[in-house]
Amino acid sequence: MKKTPFVTKEKLEEIIRDVPTPFHIYDEKGIRKNAQAVKEAFAWNPGFREYFAVKATPTPALIKILKEYDCGCDCSSMTELMLSEAMGFDGDHIMFSSNDTPLTEYKKANDIHAIINLDDFTSIADIEEALGYVPKRICCRYNPGGLFELSNGIMDNPGDSKYGMTTDQLFQAFRILKEKGVEEFGIHAFLASNTVTNEYYPKLAEVLFNLAVKLQNVTGAHIGFINLSGGVGIPYKPWEEPNDIHVIGEGVHKVYDKILVPAGMGDVKIFTEMGRFMMGPYGALVTRAIHEKHIYKEYIGVDACAVNLMRPAMYGAYHHITVMGKENAECDHKYDIVGSLCENNDKFAIDRMLPEIKKGDILYIHDTGAHGFSMGYNYNGKLWSAEILLKADGSYEMIRRPETPKDYFATLDFTLEYRKMFGEK
Amino acid sequence: MKKTPFVTKEKLEEIIRDVPTPFHIYDEKGIRKNAQAVKEAFAWNPGFREYFAVKATPTPALIKILKEYDCGCDCSSMTELMLSEAMGFDGDHIMFSSNDTPLTEYKKANDIHAIINLDDFTSIADIEEALGYVPKRICCRYNPGGLFELSNGIMDNPGDSKYGMTTDQLFQAFRILKEKGVEEFGIHAFLASNTVTNEYYPKLAEVLFNLAVKLQNVTGAHIGFINLSGGVGIPYKPWEEPNDIHVIGEGVHKVYDKILVPAGMGDVKIFTEMGRFMMGPYGALVTRAIHEKHIYKEYIGVDACAVNLMRPAMYGAYHHITVMGKENAECDHKYDIVGSLCENNDKFAIDRMLPEIKKGDILYIHDTGAHGFSMGYNYNGKLWSAEILLKADGSYEMIRRPETPKDYFATLDFTLEYRKMFGEK
Repeated sequence: MKKTPFVTKEKLEEIIRDVPTPFHIYDEKGIRKNAQAVKEAFAWNPGFREYFAVKATPTPALIKILKEYDCGCDCSSMTELMLSEAMGFDGDHIMFSSNDTPLTEYKKANDIHAIINLDDFTSIADIEEALGYVPKRICCRYNPGGLFELSNGIMDNPGDSKYGMTTDQLFQAFRILKEKGVEEFGIHAFLASNTVTNEYYPKLAEVLFNLAVKLQNVTGAHIGFINLSGGVGIPYKPWEEPNDIHVIGEGVHKVYDKILVPAGMGDVKIFTEMGRFMMGPYGALVTRAIHEKHIYKEYIGVDACAVNLMRPAMYGAYHHITVMGKENAECDHKYDIVGSLCENNDKFAIDRMLPEIKKGDILYIHDTGAHGFSMGYNYNGKLWSAEILLKADGSYEMIRRPETPKDYFATLDFTLEYRKMFGEK
Repeated sequence: MKKTPFVTKEKLEEIIRDVPTPFHIYDEKGIRKNAQAVKEAFAWNPGFREYFAVKATPTPALIKILKEYDCGCDCSSMTELMLSEAMGFDGDHIMFSSNDTPLTEYKKANDIHAIINLDDFTSIADIEEALGYVPKRICCRYNPGGLFELSNGIMDNPGDSKYGMTTDQLFQAFRILKEKGVEEFGIHAFLASNTVTNEYYPKLAEVLFNLAVKLQNVTGAHIGFINLSGGVGIPYKPWEEPNDIHVIGEGVHKVYDKILVPAGMGDVKIFTEMGRFMMGPYGALVTRAIHEKHIYKEYIGVDACAVNLMRPAMYGAYHHITVMGKENAECDHKYDIVGSLCENNDKFAIDRMLPEIKKGDILYIHDTGAHGFSMGYNYNGKLWSAEILLKADGSYEMIRRPETPKDYFATLDFTLEYRKMFGEK
C-alpha cells in the first residue's frame, strides 16, 4: 500500500516558518477516525475499553482526543499516573501495568483508584506492604511460557520475557487474592509485539478465555475483565497489509461467543492497550536535509537524529520516508539518511532507494506517532523537539514546546556552570 | 582481572541514607590517577592534549577534574560547547568534532575560538556560509574506507561509517583550505571503538603520520596537530586484559620518531579524545534489588533501568555486576537482572552467574562512567538519576541532582495538565 503523508508540503512549509524543524506532527483527523473504528469494532462488548499506553506518546493534547472516545490510560510509572490524573481520567479509566514496581507507585495508583495489574506472584506481598490491604478489584498478568506462533510465521517467545505469572502461579494468586477479599478479577497478557495480522488478538483471546473459564471454575473467582494488552501492529513498510480492526474485533467476538458466553461469562469486559495501533500511523517526524556527503556511500544528513526517533538506531526498525514534493519522482538514488549524533547507528535509513534529495528538502518520516518522541534521549546534548497537532479543521497547534538548553541543564541548576550559562537562579 | 568496586558497602549505605538509589557514583581518586598516567604516557610530546569527549559524561564537576591535568573538551553540539565555555575552557582546549552540523553550531564554536574539525568535504562551503570566512586553524576528519583490522581480530569498518573524508577529498580539502588562508592544519580519524589492545593507537598513528607527511609534501600545508580521536577501550569484562596507556604512549612515540621526525615534522602536536578511557571505569551505577521473580527464568528486579544505563539494552553490552557484601560468595545462581521498563530489552544482565541475591541487596554495576548517564532516556516517563562524586578525601558530593517530575514535564509547562500537577506557572 502506498504510504502517503497526512499533511501537504505547503502546510509543512507554513508550519516550519513558525516552528523550526525537526518536529513531530500528529493528525487529529486520523486519530479520531481510527479511535471511532476501534470503538465500533468492539461495540458488541458493552464493557469494552481501550487503555492507551501513555508510554507510547505521553502528550496530553493527543491522549485527550482519545478520551472523547471513552479510552482510558495504560500507565507504567509514577509520572504516567500523575499525567493521567491531571488529564481527568478516573479510576475505571486507568490501568497500572508495571513490573519490578516500587511500592510508592502502587500507592499512587491506588490513591487515584487505578486498576492495578500484578505482574508477578510476589507482587501480592508487595501490594499488601504498600497499601496495607489488597484492593477489591485487581488484575493479574499471565505469561504462558514457551513460544507463541501465528500462522504467518510471526513468533514471539513469552518464555524469555520478564513479564507475567506462570499458569500455576496464576491459579494460586487467584486463590490467595480471593481469600484476601478481592471481588473482581482481571487477566492480562502480552505475547507478541507489533503483529501485522488480524489473527493475533483472536488467537490470544482464545488462550485467555479458556484460561478464564478454568480460573473461574476452579477458584470461584469472579472475572470481570480480560485485557488483551497491546501487540496489534501497524504496517511500517509499504508492502505490509494493514490490520483491519473490524475483522479483529469480529474475530474476538466469535471466540467470546464460543468460549465465554456458554460458560455463563457473557458479562466479561474486554480491554485493550493498543498504543501503537491508536497513534503510530498518525504521527510523523518532519526534518530537513541539511547536508549531503559523497564518500564510500551517499549520505543525506538531516536536522533530526536518533534523539528524535530511536527505533531505527535501537532496533534497526524501518520507517518509511517521503521526500515532500517528490512523491511521484523515481526512487533512483540509494542513500543512507543520517542524523548528526557521534554514534554510527544514528541512521534513519540505510541503502534506501529515494528520489534525488537536495539540501533544503523536507523529509517526512512516517509512523512516529507511537514510541517515537517518547523514546527520545539527549545523547550528545541534543534537545527534544516540539510536537505539533494538525487539527481536524486544517489549523495547527504546538502541543509540546521544544526543549531549551536551560531545560536540558536543569539538573545542574545548583552549579556555577548553570549560573554562568543562564544567570543567577 | 578481578573487578573490584572503588567504594565500600558501608560508604554506599551512608550515601543511600542521603540519596536514594539508583545513582551513578564516580571515583575522584581513580580519575586523577588515570589522568596523570595519560599525561605521563604522552609527555614525550610537548604539545600533547587529551580532549575529553563531553558526550561521554557531560557533568562539569568531573570534567573540571580533568581540566587540572590540562585536558580539553571534545564537543559535538551546541549544548556541549555552551558547557565547555561555562567551565572556563579556552579555544585551544576545545575541539568541535561534529557531523551533519547546523551552521549555528559552527558559529558558536568559532565564537569561542574552538578548533573546528570538518567532517566532510562539503563542510568547507558550510563553514564559509556560517562564518563568512575560514578560520586560520582547522582540522579535517579522515576516513580511509575499507576495513581496519588489528592483529587480535578486532575489526571495524570505516567504509560503512558516516564520518570523515576520503583520501582524495582530504588532499583536495587541504589545497582549497590553504588557498582560503588556513595556516595551521590538523588531521583527525576514528576507525575503531573500544579497542582493548595496546596496538590500536600506534597502528592508527602510523596511518595518519604517513598521510600527514604526504599531505604536507604535496599541498605544502602546515600540519600542526594530529588527533587520534577515541577508540582506546576499557575492559568491561573481567577476563579482558586492560590497556596499558604507557605502552600505548610509547607505541605512538616510536611511530612518531620513525615517520614524523625524519620528515621534519617533529613539532606536530598529538591530540586524543579518550572519553571512555578517561572516565568509563571510574563510574558505577548503584541500584538496589527490589524484586525477585521466579517464572521460566530467575529474575532480580532492581530500581535502576535502561533509563539509567542503556548500553545493555541498545548494544547487548556487558557490564560487570558486584553484589555488595557478597564479593567472595560463590556465583552459583543464574539470574536475569532487570529494570522496570515495559520494554523486554531492559535487562542489565542475562543468564549471569551471581551470588544469591536478596531483596534489599545493593548491586554495583561497573564501568558506567562513560556513555552511561549521558545515554539515558526518559522512556516510560522514568526520571534521570543523581550523580555522586566520591572525593579523594573519602567524602562525597552530589554533582547532579535527580530529575523531578516537574523537570520531566517542563516542555508541557504551558498546558492545563502541567498547572494541575505543579500549580500555576
